[in-house]
Amino acid sequence: MKINQFAQLHPEITTIKNELNTIGFPTSATTTTALFKNFLQTIFWQFPATSDFYAELDQYLATPSTSLGRFIKDKESITNEVFYLVALQLLDFEADDDFQIESPIASMKNLGLFTLNNIKSTNDLVTAYYNLLNTHTKNGLTLIDKLAAQGYYTQHHFKPNQQLIFNGKAQATFLAQNFIYETVYVQTDFDSDFDGKNDLIKVEITRPKTNMKVAVAYTASPYDQGTNDLLGEKLTHNVNVSLTKKPVKKNKLMQTSSLIRGKKPLNQQPATNATHTHTPKPGYTLNDYLLVRGFASVYAAGIGTVDSDGLQTCGDAQQTASTIAVIEWLHGDRTAYTNRTDYIPVKANWSNGNVAMTGRSYLGTLAVAAATTGVKGLKTIIAEAAISSWYDYYRENGLVIAPGGFQGEDADVLAGETFSRSLRLGDYQKIKPAFIKELSHLTSGQDRKTGSYNQFWHNRNYRNNLKNIKADIMLVHGLNDWNVKLKNPAKLWRGIQQLPISKKLILHQGQHIYINAFPSFDFSDLVNLWLTHELYNINNQAEKIIPNVIVQDNVKADTWNSKPNWLSQTTTNFPLVFSKTQFKNEIAPQQFIKYCQNPDKWQTDLLNPRNDTLNDNRLIANININHDTTINGNVTIKLRIKSNQDIGMISALLLDSGNANRLQESPTILKKNGVQLGYRWYTDDLRELLQNKQQTPFKIISRAHLNLQNRHDSSQNEIIEPDKFYDVSFDLQPTYYHLPAGRKLTLVLYATDFQMTIRGNQAIHYKIDQEHSSLDIPFQ
Amino acid sequence: MKINQFAQLHPEITTIKNELNTIGFPTSATTTTALFKNFLQTIFWQFPATSDFYAELDQYLATPSTSLGRFIKDKESITNEVFYLVALQLLDFEADDDFQIESPIASMKNLGLFTLNNIKSTNDLVTAYYNLLNTHTKNGLTLIDKLAAQGYYTQHHFKPNQQLIFNGKAQATFLAQNFIYETVYVQTDFDSDFDGKNDLIKVEITRPKTNMKVAVAYTASPYDQGTNDLLGEKLTHNVNVSLTKKPVKKNKLMQTSSLIRGKKPLNQQPATNATHTHTPKPGYTLNDYLLVRGFASVYAAGIGTVDSDGLQTCGDAQQTASTIAVIEWLHGDRTAYTNRTDYIPVKANWSNGNVAMTGRSYLGTLAVAAATTGVKGLKTIIAEAAISSWYDYYRENGLVIAPGGFQGEDADVLAGETFSRSLRLGDYQKIKPAFIKELSHLTSGQDRKTGSYNQFWHNRNYRNNLKNIKADIMLVHGLNDWNVKLKNPAKLWRGIQQLPISKKLILHQGQHIYINAFPSFDFSDLVNLWLTHELYNINNQAEKIIPNVIVQDNVKADTWNSKPNWLSQTTTNFPLVFSKTQFKNEIAPQQFIKYCQNPDKWQTDLLNPRNDTLNDNRLIANININHDTTINGNVTIKLRIKSNQDIGMISALLLDSGNANRLQESPTILKKNGVQLGYRWYTDDLRELLQNKQQTPFKIISRAHLNLQNRHDSSQNEIIEPDKFYDVSFDLQPTYYHLPAGRKLTLVLYATDFQMTIRGNQAIHYKIDQEHSSLDIPFQ
Repeated sequence: MKINQFAQLHPEITTIKNELNTIGFPTSATTTTALFKNFLQTIFWQFPATSDFYAELDQYLATPSTSLGRFIKDKESITNEVFYLVALQLLDFEADDDFQIESPIASMKNLGLFTLNNIKSTNDLVTAYYNLLNTHTKNGLTLIDKLAAQGYYTQHHFKPNQQLIFNGKAQATFLAQNFIYETVYVQTDFDSDFDGKNDLIKVEITRPKTNMKVAVAYTASPYDQGTNDLLGEKLTHNVNVSLTKKPVKKNKLMQTSSLIRGKKPLNQQPATNATHTHTPKPGYTLNDYLLVRGFASVYAAGIGTVDSDGLQTCGDAQQTASTIAVIEWLHGDRTAYTNRTDYIPVKANWSNGNVAMTGRSYLGTLAVAAATTGVKGLKTIIAEAAISSWYDYYRENGLVIAPGGFQGEDADVLAGETFSRSLRLGDYQKIKPAFIKELSHLTSGQDRKTGSYNQFWHNRNYRNNLKNIKADIMLVHGLNDWNVKLKNPAKLWRGIQQLPISKKLILHQGQHIYINAFPSFDFSDLVNLWLTHELYNINNQAEKIIPNVIVQDNVKADTWNSKPNWLSQTTTNFPLVFSKTQFKNEIAPQQFIKYCQNPDKWQTDLLNPRNDTLNDNRLIANININHDTTINGNVTIKLRIKSNQDIGMISALLLDSGNANRLQESPTILKKNGVQLGYRWYTDDLRELLQNKQQTPFKIISRAHLNLQNRHDSSQNEIIEPDKFYDVSFDLQPTYYHLPAGRKLTLVLYATDFQMTIRGNQAIHYKIDQEHSSLDIPFQ
Repeated sequence: MKINQFAQLHPEITTIKNELNTIGFPTSATTTTALFKNFLQTIFWQFPATSDFYAELDQYLATPSTSLGRFIKDKESITNEVFYLVALQLLDFEADDDFQIESPIASMKNLGLFTLNNIKSTNDLVTAYYNLLNTHTKNGLTLIDKLAAQGYYTQHHFKPNQQLIFNGKAQATFLAQNFIYETVYVQTDFDSDFDGKNDLIKVEITRPKTNMKVAVAYTASPYDQGTNDLLGEKLTHNVNVSLTKKPVKKNKLMQTSSLIRGKKPLNQQPATNATHTHTPKPGYTLNDYLLVRGFASVYAAGIGTVDSDGLQTCGDAQQTASTIAVIEWLHGDRTAYTNRTDYIPVKANWSNGNVAMTGRSYLGTLAVAAATTGVKGLKTIIAEAAISSWYDYYRENGLVIAPGGFQGEDADVLAGETFSRSLRLGDYQKIKPAFIKELSHLTSGQDRKTGSYNQFWHNRNYRNNLKNIKADIMLVHGLNDWNVKLKNPAKLWRGIQQLPISKKLILHQGQHIYINAFPSFDFSDLVNLWLTHELYNINNQAEKIIPNVIVQDNVKADTWNSKPNWLSQTTTNFPLVFSKTQFKNEIAPQQFIKYCQNPDKWQTDLLNPRNDTLNDNRLIANININHDTTINGNVTIKLRIKSNQDIGMISALLLDSGNANRLQESPTILKKNGVQLGYRWYTDDLRELLQNKQQTPFKIISRAHLNLQNRHDSSQNEIIEPDKFYDVSFDLQPTYYHLPAGRKLTLVLYATDFQMTIRGNQAIHYKIDQEHSSLDIPFQ
């Protein structure tokens, strides 16, 4: 177990004392002995009776042979050994498992926890316990957060429902019991469902009851009002179709604005308060964490969802406009109504006008979309596993490519699935004709036939509008995310490098997951520090303290490092040496059916060099690197290749080969309800990406797919002359991969990808000119 | 999807009207049309403005072509088709997926929901919507529970924090925001850790704030204050040891009392209130469900846990006494103190003295233990997956047998793991010598060497004291539970049949799991009905309404049936025809090591008839039944068998063979946080045992193990003469198994069970006399 804390501040002693005084911790005494006792009395505020207090202290050890109660009673002198042995116990670490009773200092350091080497003066002791309060326990949050969850702030020392900043971070001083639950309906400037009225968007607000104006963590989630999975299933496309020859052409692309401005809002006599409520329920636990710390949590599902107007348009400008309409209202620039019928305006007079967007996947995507409008009030986005261009989600280099695990999904399918208005049958009946029309536009616009980049996708490429971005950006992405693939954050990250905004990047070793309950990484603290700065203008040095790029190591568990940057531009060229030069696409019909039913089995067979079922369908090249190194960015494949037909596709998988105990890509629950987000408030399950106990022979580093007709540009369809060699060069999905010495890189080339491409099982044969085939690898 | 509601009452119209009046629903109007509108206005209490109300109604369909708003505005006549189409939508079922818009009545019936065939009079309509309010939504609770979670009772109609019974069940009228969190320390009559003081037991109470005296759901959980997994791991036994010859003898067994009475409690000036609190956190969601319905939730971890005294004794009389001490305090018969040092008594003056025990596994076990003392105040136990004799948990027929998945675990290991006092280092230092002594008593007492039933196990056999039971008993057990095996509930169930108490049994198709969040089964309602009767003496006919035996079907998903009883005594004898008659125990050393590392692989190979790795180590017999039937109880194996040595063990697995889409044994989460337990309160994940989409070739029905030296009695070690045939007869774990036509039964005989027995890999050879080998099968 190792804790990596990036959001722990270490201020000067004056600041420390001021902050400790504010939260009721002692900062002066004649001796360290007296001070330590006072500190413990504050920590154990729940045991006021003297005998009771000592009984509690006796549960802890001060030295390997003396209980803490005895130690305090005997007025022994505090040493750093004593302090940190007590600290480790207060932090809920377990003896033998996490630390050694005999060596507390070394144990603290092994755990990665801040440790003072000498505690001699009272100032030393004050510094030590200030830092201790801001150190993580075993359970994912800091010691002061643990005390807060026991009621320290709200039941004991501090008056509840007032903001308190400690160590640069907003504290859990807001009482969940007092939260206000409101619903309003924001009016947009457009009418996406053609009912003659501007679309209204339902907004669900949960906010602390407080006299101050509060900042907002806003999550735009098309899933939030339910999904119509059956409709999504019905719309899912058959992928067992042939690759076809495309008409040779370059698709024309027009620049489009991400902003829509249309009809004016109506106005009536305003209401003082929202009159609709909503049923309290747990949301994204990061928002719930922020709520008790004085941020409002706001959800909107946007156009096409229950209680809102409009249609699901899967990423177009109307969806973006519906997303930012909420921010405009929060910032005072737009009208919202108390209900859907009476047009009674209601203001967000409780809001300080500063908004952050949070959420993962589609939710993060809409945060990116919103940022590219430059909407006022949006101070920052924390976009997790976000799409930055929908082409990079559903397509790749002129091919239809499924998000991992969702063969046959496409923009229209997702629109259907998230069109939760269809779940309300009365509403659905009314809107169905418009929805079906919109759906047919989506289906034709997305153009599965060619898979090429066209105006439809151009309209859904948020990167066209990067120059508008005003909000600071924090990107979070899993290096093993095969759902939202890494081109999405990479191209966005590259695109914003020159913008005059703050930008932070966190790359973790998970798949398409949330990372806010990992003991190894203080993500929640980091977000807290960031938002306290961004939304409350607190000068907490967040921009300086938080590294620009944090990458979780893929070799050592629980290891998160600050890195100079992602996406190295310097590459080394390696020749590709295959044992043969030809491979074919088609496989025996019976085997084909089996693989269609079980694409995971196909992958297992493909990547197992000892399984020869797919021997004729793949080429394998090994590259020995021999020393410990890191791949940082896009590996580029250069091939001279020919197809025996006027069509062709090429797929590639890059592996890290060699037996090793690798990290798991899905989190394991360490403790159900183990993360206490606040006093009498929701919990989260403590989880972590564990190291495999068994060795695995390889791991997928990256992949790529290319339609040979789009060998230069995904919007440019070119001709393929059968049996003519072409030089192609295309990028694997970017990565940040630590390759230890003793492993080798393995490139597997093939055509049909049963997990991601269409599967025509056509008799296409490919040949490589090995002399002109190589890999460009960007090392760190 | 199918809903099975056993706890829905259908009273007479007068009762219906009274109950509806109490909760604010209309019961009279001049026309059904007017009444229906009033009903909808009550349901949609959150939309008071007229236009708003109709806008909400317009989200629903009244007929396939008319919205509900239109329908009400036009004052159309209500029909049962209209009523149930609206009902299905209010219940959150999804069109096409769960029901057909064109046939609401048939859809209701297909879903298993109560449906009135004719709605003509206002009384019909009142009856229909009374029942609708008590019908389950798609999300695991009733419609009235859904309204309550939106705040209907506490924010709108009913004064909060007062008890309300509706349809026989306590309603969610208690506000979580007002809950009181208290901790007290109950004094026992014994000193299990030999420190010269009576053991104190920490009790954590969460209770509604209310003027009435409340009943208690009490969970005794040795895990509740944390576990020392590392200590448990260290204590885990090596199972790769030889089977040894036992001294021939009959272990002497003395009857012991389950009650301990010792030193008297001390007394001082009493306190009016508890002064210690505890940190609010989610518990067993059944208790949390009950809390907002007016039951206190009380947890105690018992002797040997954090903040309590004593040692972990794994199931002995002291642990039982510590368990019931809490009940005695709740009933007013015992002293508790405000803290651990000052001996200030505090009474449970908020308690009505009526206690139910809840919980699964060890928790349910302690409920059984408590019931066998006849302690006053304990009105009922709901014992889920409970042990009734620790011998049946860690041993079988003279063999050491692991609980599924926990090879090498034993009473001493569990004592170590749950000895959470070891997590508090100061406390541990003090208590360690006593603990180590106790541990050595456990290790010697459990006697892994012989595996025979002795005084140690006799002291931990709660069935010795069945005659003391006064509490009504509800047993819940998974028919696929290989952790706490089915002998435990079966022998207990058989043993209490003649007692003058109420007894209920629920057998589900899960493993070692909780079943309180399954949409298919109204377990929470059923417990609510039961406890409202048992603890509040409400005459709700719970004893009559709840079937004595409910069994989940293993063939059809979502199907729970009332059955006459479990454990049929009538058996049919089937000859066993093996293809050969000899098998051996030992396997090649390398293979042995592999199987030890991966016992699941061993099972896969053993049960795959086409895999011949273990061909010499098994005998297989098939029995064709040919017609649809049900095995109800213990299958008995009769063998004439000989060993070539003076030792021997025999293991058996009974399979249901034949390709089929069987039910999964682990629940799948259908909706994270989908079950709303109350207004502003915790949630649970909606889950279900789903039907496999893929066919499986077989499924394990039952298993058994026997030490040939204990062929007549597990406390009687007999001699084995090598190469001499013996007749043995032993029971497989009892079951309730629906075997459809077209399947066959397969019995697999072998010796070492890599998952459960010791693994000596000794060269023992066995021979069967087939003429004298058969199975006795109890059909329903």
